[in-house]
Amino acid sequence: MEHYEKQHKEHFSGSALAVNSGVEQPPVVSPYFKKVKRRQLSVDDYMKGILEGNTTVLSQAITLIESLRPEHYELSQKIIEKCLPYSGKSVRIGITGVPGAGKSTFIEAIGNKVTNLGHKLAVLAIDPSSEKSKGSILGDKTRMETLVHNEKAFIRPSPSAGSLGGVARKTRETVILCEAAGFDVIFIETVGVGQSETAVHSMVDLFLMIQISGAGDELQGIKRGIMEMADMVAINKADGDNIQRANLTKAHFVNALNLFPMPESKWKPRVYTCSSIEGTGLLDIWSGVEDFIRFTRENGYYQKNRNRQAKYWMYETINDALKERFYQNEEVKNQLAFFERKVLDNEISSFIAARELLRIYSEKK
Amino acid sequence: MEHYEKQHKEHFSGSALAVNSGVEQPPVVSPYFKKVKRRQLSVDDYMKGILEGNTTVLSQAITLIESLRPEHYELSQKIIEKCLPYSGKSVRIGITGVPGAGKSTFIEAIGNKVTNLGHKLAVLAIDPSSEKSKGSILGDKTRMETLVHNEKAFIRPSPSAGSLGGVARKTRETVILCEAAGFDVIFIETVGVGQSETAVHSMVDLFLMIQISGAGDELQGIKRGIMEMADMVAINKADGDNIQRANLTKAHFVNALNLFPMPESKWKPRVYTCSSIEGTGLLDIWSGVEDFIRFTRENGYYQKNRNRQAKYWMYETINDALKERFYQNEEVKNQLAFFERKVLDNEISSFIAARELLRIYSEKK
Repeated sequence: MEHYEKQHKEHFSGSALAVNSGVEQPPVVSPYFKKVKRRQLSVDDYMKGILEGNTTVLSQAITLIESLRPEHYELSQKIIEKCLPYSGKSVRIGITGVPGAGKSTFIEAIGNKVTNLGHKLAVLAIDPSSEKSKGSILGDKTRMETLVHNEKAFIRPSPSAGSLGGVARKTRETVILCEAAGFDVIFIETVGVGQSETAVHSMVDLFLMIQISGAGDELQGIKRGIMEMADMVAINKADGDNIQRANLTKAHFVNALNLFPMPESKWKPRVYTCSSIEGTGLLDIWSGVEDFIRFTRENGYYQKNRNRQAKYWMYETINDALKERFYQNEEVKNQLAFFERKVLDNEISSFIAARELLRIYSEKK
Repeated sequence: MEHYEKQHKEHFSGSALAVNSGVEQPPVVSPYFKKVKRRQLSVDDYMKGILEGNTTVLSQAITLIESLRPEHYELSQKIIEKCLPYSGKSVRIGITGVPGAGKSTFIEAIGNKVTNLGHKLAVLAIDPSSEKSKGSILGDKTRMETLVHNEKAFIRPSPSAGSLGGVARKTRETVILCEAAGFDVIFIETVGVGQSETAVHSMVDLFLMIQISGAGDELQGIKRGIMEMADMVAINKADGDNIQRANLTKAHFVNALNLFPMPESKWKPRVYTCSSIEGTGLLDIWSGVEDFIRFTRENGYYQKNRNRQAKYWMYETINDALKERFYQNEEVKNQLAFFERKVLDNEISSFIAARELLRIYSEKK
């Protein structure tokens, strides 16, 4: 008990909290949060707040998931476990598209339509650039101004530290909490660069690719593997004198998608045009999403896909935990830099260094 | 000692050996091997055979690396450690190219030139298709008929089981053994599909991309990331009435490569044309390889790159070993299928399953 009080104190002391940068808290401070802040949050407090749909508590719990401190990680796992029975009921949608396709504008425009239909929407992101630049796609939340202030929407920037695998796991865990908080539509945004699509694909029910019409070479630069993942394609910016071009691009995509074999879902990918600025085509896309979900639920693919994803995440979680335990081990932490230096200076081989560190780990844990 | 005799017995008993399929042994059975086969190979036997350049013993040692049995893995690690002081002295060259570019023919043609110059050549492969199809690029060794019978060349198909990461580590370890056996030029072949290039790139000094001339759209389909890795490009099949097109393609590549910023090596990537069938251009390419090695050795990039790769492999080796220990744990092996089934049947969540398996592992090891 003392242990938990200690970590809660640290958690709320602010400066001691090793959270990722760029994670902004929602502007509203609820009375619930004020109250619990004084008496420290227990796992049950977190769960209660999340189940009540309190986004401040939800944000705090997500911060624990993203924290680099082992005690925060442990606490987050307890919260996730409590929330699990209340999760799984959302429609999870992956959204990809090259920079410039207008993803943020699209998400904002369709997001507001979706909440108007009575849904609660959470927007998450997996940002592969985070590995290098520590940046975040959604860090620039000003691009989603109206959605940020939409009470039925919750926007969470990408965790900005760690490997893609780690970020993906954290996003997957965040989905659980958002679902427990009553969000029944989850968007997971990424950019079109390959590996992050695969990660997103492993946690969503439907994959939507945003495209814009180009100068006749629309299909160039789109990787075959990403095309193959798409259940739906939306040609954005179909407005003004761009409408004809967008329709042409749509035709190109329909042709291109016809070249692929029928996917396992038996769902023939659909291509739409839309304008995020004029708001046209968005409800058609949403209706397409509903068709997809109905279709795959009926033919059993929906559940099969989710179960397979769960199996994948079982292995990912194990592999992550094994690394976590190793690299968080005190003795390993003390020795890692030393051995890394020796390897970089060519004094010992990578294999010997690895063996020594593994020996230290086996002996000292 | 008993333990080792046991595993050696198993190793040579044939049927008990869990090696990968498609791994063919060299046709020559040396007197050395005949002798040691009777009295079982010790770590020192392996080392002695390898240092003598005995390719039969080398092949057996590589088979241990590729074996899925933990005791073989342990033995292979001991052999590698003994061989380490004798490794590192080869020129390691990654060779990539889309299927149809004539990689095998190219490797055979330039390989014979390289051995004629007095080098000993080992040809290895990282085959990403192995994950799904269990196939092997070099499985079809008949395509390298003359190289197979070249006494100064050693061809080893890709290990055909395990993840790309595992296959990559095994290939990296195989490089060590080949170097200790006196091979001073190592080719590591892969196909142009992204992740495997990154893996190969992490273990070679020079990256060579094989291309053929197409119908004006030569640069299409080549991923930017792979282009950026290339230190040299060879336009293959520059023969007959294809010479002019090959020269045009070369010009396109020169232009395209000019668009990239100067790489850290300060080596400006070169583009060559060649014909594997007519044997033209191959010695120019080899001379380019020598230029590259000289240039990067002089400016320090060569060693810096190798040290950085060593650091990378320290982490990869650790991460692989952590997984190896977990998934080879007897109790985990007994329970894994059970939990996987429960997750697939949606009876428990992936997180709970992972936690339970991790708990079993922590308690039972």
